[in-house]
Amino acid sequence: MSPWAMEHQSIKSWPETAPTLIAVAAGRAAADMVIRNGQWVNVHTREILPNHDIAIAEGRIAFVGPDASHCIDETTEIIEAEGRFMIPGLCDGHMHIESGMLTPAEFARAVIPHGTTTMFTDPHEIANVLGLEGVKMMHDEALMQPVNIFTQMPSCAPSAPGLETTGYEISPEDVAEAMTWPGIIGLGEMMNFPGVINADPKMLAEIAATQVAGKTVGGHYASPDLGPAFHAYVAGGPADDHEGTCEADAIARVRQGMRSMMRLGSAWYDVETQITAVTEKGLDSRNFILCTDDCHSGTLVNDGHMNRVVRHAIDCGCDPVVALQMATINTATHFGLERELGSITPGRRADVILTSDLKTLPIEQVIARGKSIAKDGKGLVDCPHYDWPEHARQTVNMGADRTADDFIVPAPEGANRVTVNVIGVVENQAPTKALKADLNVSDGRVEMDIENDVCQIALVERHRALGTTTNAFVSGFGYQGNMAMASTVAHDSHHMIVVGTSREDMALAANRLSEVGGGVTIFKDGKELALVELPIAGLMSDQPATEVATKAQAMVDAMEACGCTLNNAYMQHSLLALVVIPELRISDLGLVDVTTFEMTDVIQAHS
Amino acid sequence: MSPWAMEHQSIKSWPETAPTLIAVAAGRAAADMVIRNGQWVNVHTREILPNHDIAIAEGRIAFVGPDASHCIDETTEIIEAEGRFMIPGLCDGHMHIESGMLTPAEFARAVIPHGTTTMFTDPHEIANVLGLEGVKMMHDEALMQPVNIFTQMPSCAPSAPGLETTGYEISPEDVAEAMTWPGIIGLGEMMNFPGVINADPKMLAEIAATQVAGKTVGGHYASPDLGPAFHAYVAGGPADDHEGTCEADAIARVRQGMRSMMRLGSAWYDVETQITAVTEKGLDSRNFILCTDDCHSGTLVNDGHMNRVVRHAIDCGCDPVVALQMATINTATHFGLERELGSITPGRRADVILTSDLKTLPIEQVIARGKSIAKDGKGLVDCPHYDWPEHARQTVNMGADRTADDFIVPAPEGANRVTVNVIGVVENQAPTKALKADLNVSDGRVEMDIENDVCQIALVERHRALGTTTNAFVSGFGYQGNMAMASTVAHDSHHMIVVGTSREDMALAANRLSEVGGGVTIFKDGKELALVELPIAGLMSDQPATEVATKAQAMVDAMEACGCTLNNAYMQHSLLALVVIPELRISDLGLVDVTTFEMTDVIQAHS
Repeated sequence: MSPWAMEHQSIKSWPETAPTLIAVAAGRAAADMVIRNGQWVNVHTREILPNHDIAIAEGRIAFVGPDASHCIDETTEIIEAEGRFMIPGLCDGHMHIESGMLTPAEFARAVIPHGTTTMFTDPHEIANVLGLEGVKMMHDEALMQPVNIFTQMPSCAPSAPGLETTGYEISPEDVAEAMTWPGIIGLGEMMNFPGVINADPKMLAEIAATQVAGKTVGGHYASPDLGPAFHAYVAGGPADDHEGTCEADAIARVRQGMRSMMRLGSAWYDVETQITAVTEKGLDSRNFILCTDDCHSGTLVNDGHMNRVVRHAIDCGCDPVVALQMATINTATHFGLERELGSITPGRRADVILTSDLKTLPIEQVIARGKSIAKDGKGLVDCPHYDWPEHARQTVNMGADRTADDFIVPAPEGANRVTVNVIGVVENQAPTKALKADLNVSDGRVEMDIENDVCQIALVERHRALGTTTNAFVSGFGYQGNMAMASTVAHDSHHMIVVGTSREDMALAANRLSEVGGGVTIFKDGKELALVELPIAGLMSDQPATEVATKAQAMVDAMEACGCTLNNAYMQHSLLALVVIPELRISDLGLVDVTTFEMTDVIQAHS
Repeated sequence: MSPWAMEHQSIKSWPETAPTLIAVAAGRAAADMVIRNGQWVNVHTREILPNHDIAIAEGRIAFVGPDASHCIDETTEIIEAEGRFMIPGLCDGHMHIESGMLTPAEFARAVIPHGTTTMFTDPHEIANVLGLEGVKMMHDEALMQPVNIFTQMPSCAPSAPGLETTGYEISPEDVAEAMTWPGIIGLGEMMNFPGVINADPKMLAEIAATQVAGKTVGGHYASPDLGPAFHAYVAGGPADDHEGTCEADAIARVRQGMRSMMRLGSAWYDVETQITAVTEKGLDSRNFILCTDDCHSGTLVNDGHMNRVVRHAIDCGCDPVVALQMATINTATHFGLERELGSITPGRRADVILTSDLKTLPIEQVIARGKSIAKDGKGLVDCPHYDWPEHARQTVNMGADRTADDFIVPAPEGANRVTVNVIGVVENQAPTKALKADLNVSDGRVEMDIENDVCQIALVERHRALGTTTNAFVSGFGYQGNMAMASTVAHDSHHMIVVGTSREDMALAANRLSEVGGGVTIFKDGKELALVELPIAGLMSDQPATEVATKAQAMVDAMEACGCTLNNAYMQHSLLALVVIPELRISDLGLVDVTTFEMTDVIQAHS
């Protein structure tokens, strides 16, 4: 399928505008806008060319050359670049809008001042809660925005069939249907890598439907094993992977004909460890792409978005133009859009950033589709909201309120002390560690060991009102005193994850989220310290990012007040049910060993 | 449209073979073939990796790694690379099969031992003679071959409307129809660049039909003007161009987001003059592609095909792996086929060459789609012939035989001496020079000036049996004595071009081609010196390349015997009616000034 058939609600296609673009380039018609006298950062040749003009018409670039005066009349808007760099709008190669806890509109509004003009988003969070209909809602709001938001059709809901129960499931038929939607650019990360390796017909059917549609299959191979299993996954068809964490991972993927997506999210730091494949090993850089994967709203408000990633890549020693290629043309080429966006050249969408420094990358002006949409950090454009239906706002269905007793881990008959499997949180990394702890038993219950940082984790069912709760143990947050934190953002099945040192507070926190329709809350000594309401699917707010970020920051502060000092520990919290990333996770079905993809017991032994 | 829907007569798609490829990579099934212990030339990373194995199943690559022993059982064919380099099969980014004077089958048979496994061919010669039906015949024979021959739908028949009359014309509707055929990869070179610059609705409709189908628009901007006209052409949508002749041309095209196709044909030498953009100016090489455009059979038999081009690029100072990228992955990426071919990585067609030297590039073994198809210069595979219908073999319809009088250029009433416009042939270059000559008049006829190398050229109508002949003058061949050479290969309208110093021999040559159904002949002093029969459309032979090359060599020898010492002068002869390349050409309508795209007079002044 052609990019020309895509999401043309707000921009005409190249063939539709060609007569105008030609006339402007030839000097027979005037441009709508001319950006004058900038340094053209050319991501095709990898050059910086001073003293260039850009002429824009009907949202697309008509002409780039040393002198566009033949494209100007009195109706032409002139933007003086004054020698600044003109770089293509930045592309995020793989990301989840839901991670910002924002709707697509509010996410766009937050990232536009940072120069992100194109996103490849996989709404697999909402797919788990609301199924294909939820994906369609996200897709539709995405297409309403003044920047380019392409949707990767979620592939794995559930992420690991048999290990969790989601609100809805995605089928190969859903994938085939979605491939006909205007904004669908490919298949979202194929997280079920054991399924691919074992040639699971359902996973292969989803990949096939995407390939037959001529679209890009996103990968997700979250294992350090680069032996036959890795090779089998590659042979299955995924075209990229963002789960690499070290140089060898990146090199292995690119050698095998995949693109390596290197991510700097709020909690992922996988650029520095992999970009040496280019900066030190000298590999051809064309197959390396930068992305964020997951950014929370605080990062968006305080640190930036793709500009932060590009800046970081440069700080890691990458040539600035090479780093920009990794966030522009490399990404566009990967998704079959190299003639549609990703460079400042004729025919492409007029997505241009003005910046006075290529190293620190201040985003001084952002033009998208030929319109100035942000200047000096301020948005200048409306990001329209989708009319979310009521049932998308009522998704926390716990069945009944929880009590402290629901969070009891019963000890085996007659046990005094037990050895339990503990989910070990690792700062700034997605994988967890499978730890063990010896815990006391009192009154037939396994007790936490707060002193040694072993507290409880629970998965509260919230999709089908079953009233069930699974309990286990977690370590690494450093919580002290009586507290609990609950979140309906609970990747990927998005039930509710509750972590706490006090079963009473755990019940309070869970019930509070039921009351507000989802979000994140922290209780300490029976009192709520912070709340982020996420009414849409229990995942997103339709309030501005600054507001959500303020609340999220209050939540982080509250976590700290409870003794947690990990960086971005909320992200870790929300991922503890992500049963596709090793080593140990919790789901509505129990504790999952993600090295073997099998259920495992909380209590391993007792005495 | 997806590559997966293409030409699957002889190879299953990746999704169809994925279960097998996965099983082989994982070690659960045996490969059909394993190439063992070679140096893997990785065009994704730009590395050479020694001691690697390639496992192949169902025509595709299943596994590449240091050890494929887990993919082998007793049924697996083993090829020992013995430390040789394993490079991807070579791709020709733009070419015309008809230029070899061979059918697609015989062309394939000729180039397979040279390692060409993928061709992007524009059958615009036959389009001028037999229209869309002729294109379909070429397309269908292409799909029967054991290598990948993708068809670019011809865009410009006639190449310059109003300046020539072709046998058939191609319409935007024809283009739209062809875009649905399985082997169509894009639009063939958009030669009507004035049409694009002037936003000719017909040309833009052809481009739009291609873009909407998600396919690649081939360019052809044959002008040194890099001002607004060039920019307007770029804004019209062509994605590549092979008409650049100097470094500035290549750089301009790539900066504007096109791909620069650098050609080394039998008569084109445009690599050496442009590749310095990469080797000296250090531009990102990903947007540079090697191609042949036009190769006659002698070149194929004696010198090679894409191996000759890659070798030449290396001789010009290009890094061997970069040169190979320009003939493999760069080409595949350009046509949206980067996950289908162009590298030795899982899922791709198993097109692999074994060579013991990356600089001299001997083609020692060629594997295509997992089958060994050539070894040590010998083909090992059948290249099936299409059943060409009788009307495709009877295309020389002159109406009536010609006499010497048909080739008279009448002088203006009372003239004694005239100044004429003369087509000036330039060795090894496509453009001609617009020259002038003062010629004598006798008996009311303008006489040639053989001493000063001014002889006659005629265009004999052969599509509609109109019996018309247009006459003009040409210089540069160096012909002496009484001779004439005629050819029904007469780009692009493919009437018949006759060049001669004797009007009698001109008539004999023309009539001879009528008799044999087309081809090339040379007469000297009333006797035929050489003949190449090209019965299919008057353009191609279905005899083997070696036979055609022998006859073509006899023709070149005969040209030399007539005084012509230019390199590849036959190519120059056949291009003298190509009314899209400056400066002066002949057509069935008269003499054409290709700097202004207007008809011009043969006789400019007289005294």
